Amino acid sequence: MGFPKIFHDLIESLSQFPGVGRRSAERMAFYILKMQPKEVSELARRIEDVQKFIKPCALCNNFSTEEICSLCSSPKREKDVLCIVEEPKDIMAIEKTSQYNGLYYVLLGSISPLDGIEDLNIGKLLRRIASNQIKEVIISTDPDNDGELTAQFLIQKLSPYKVKIYRIAIGIPLGTQIEYIDSATLGKALMDRKPV
Amino acid sequence: MGFPKIFHDLIESLSQFPGVGRRSAERMAFYILKMQPKEVSELARRIEDVQKFIKPCALCNNFSTEEICSLCSSPKREKDVLCIVEEPKDIMAIEKTSQYNGLYYVLLGSISPLDGIEDLNIGKLLRRIASNQIKEVIISTDPDNDGELTAQFLIQKLSPYKVKIYRIAIGIPLGTQIEYIDSATLGKALMDRKPV
Repeated sequence: MGFPKIFHDLIESLSQFPGVGRRSAERMAFYILKMQPKEVSELARRIEDVQKFIKPCALCNNFSTEEICSLCSSPKREKDVLCIVEEPKDIMAIEKTSQYNGLYYVLLGSISPLDGIEDLNIGKLLRRIASNQIKEVIISTDPDNDGELTAQFLIQKLSPYKVKIYRIAIGIPLGTQIEYIDSATLGKALMDRKPV
Repeated sequence: MGFPKIFHDLIESLSQFPGVGRRSAERMAFYILKMQPKEVSELARRIEDVQKFIKPCALCNNFSTEEICSLCSSPKREKDVLCIVEEPKDIMAIEKTSQYNGLYYVLLGSISPLDGIEDLNIGKLLRRIASNQIKEVIISTDPDNDGELTAQFLIQKLSPYKVKIYRIAIGIPLGTQIEYIDSATLGKALMDRKPV
């Protein structure tokens, strides 16, 4: 196309990202060409750094540059509540709400029969529950098929322990209109109605 | 937010890109963490390479890793037609059409009174026209205010030379419905009607 191969290579790499189409990748590549050399090496360094230095927290599997992540080691967090999520990005979403101040455990996946995943390695989680420091778990897996199966799986595995088990509330989202809500959610919200 | 600083730094860098919001930058950062280490260093290298090795072609200002770009040096291109565009990305768009086989000249900007740009350095272009190798120029600046002013500027500067001057056709785009076309374009298309 009249442009140097290394330029097309970069566009190729950028269009691998989720949600980044060919056109966006082109715009990003043009933008990179116009950036200050210092900014470019900074960007390249940051990309390499996250992979080089970030590993799962030994306690909760959250992203961390230390053995124990900043959440697990924070003196400000409640140490007896554990929110179980599928992926580290779920932690980001929950932290943004400022409504939760306990600890997390990241499953790094979910039960997914379609992908042949019918079991999860939760030894680390069970050992932690067995140590009796956790009084409450809040199962916050996604409200989809795999997430619900994962929740059932966790409930079964955790029931033998002396711990209160909660599931995050599923219902109609704020700011929506009932007429537009899918009927599965609406039905679930009616079944799970809360006394006032 | 419970994630390592280097992770937030990366999100920060990625959200600088045009069209990349906070959420997309987060998704890209999560994706980078899951990439193979080899792919990550490849991506970082490609980002640095484009800036390190790409410079303007000495003849036409197009992106090039060589003194003269692949289009200017191609034996397959017509050497007496010159398409004048504002930016290298316009070359990419025109090349995709496969409807043009001449050479290019990139202005690297446009007349823009609002930005205080009322003149363009086109010495290199004029010397090339003066050398009498170009028989036709096609002014392909954007059909907006600045692009039209730039076209007028070029017409004035090029008129003294023995060269046929064209402006790329402006009119109603293919695949649209006349009722939805903005009236400026529609008016221009009527004025510029073509005999059949």
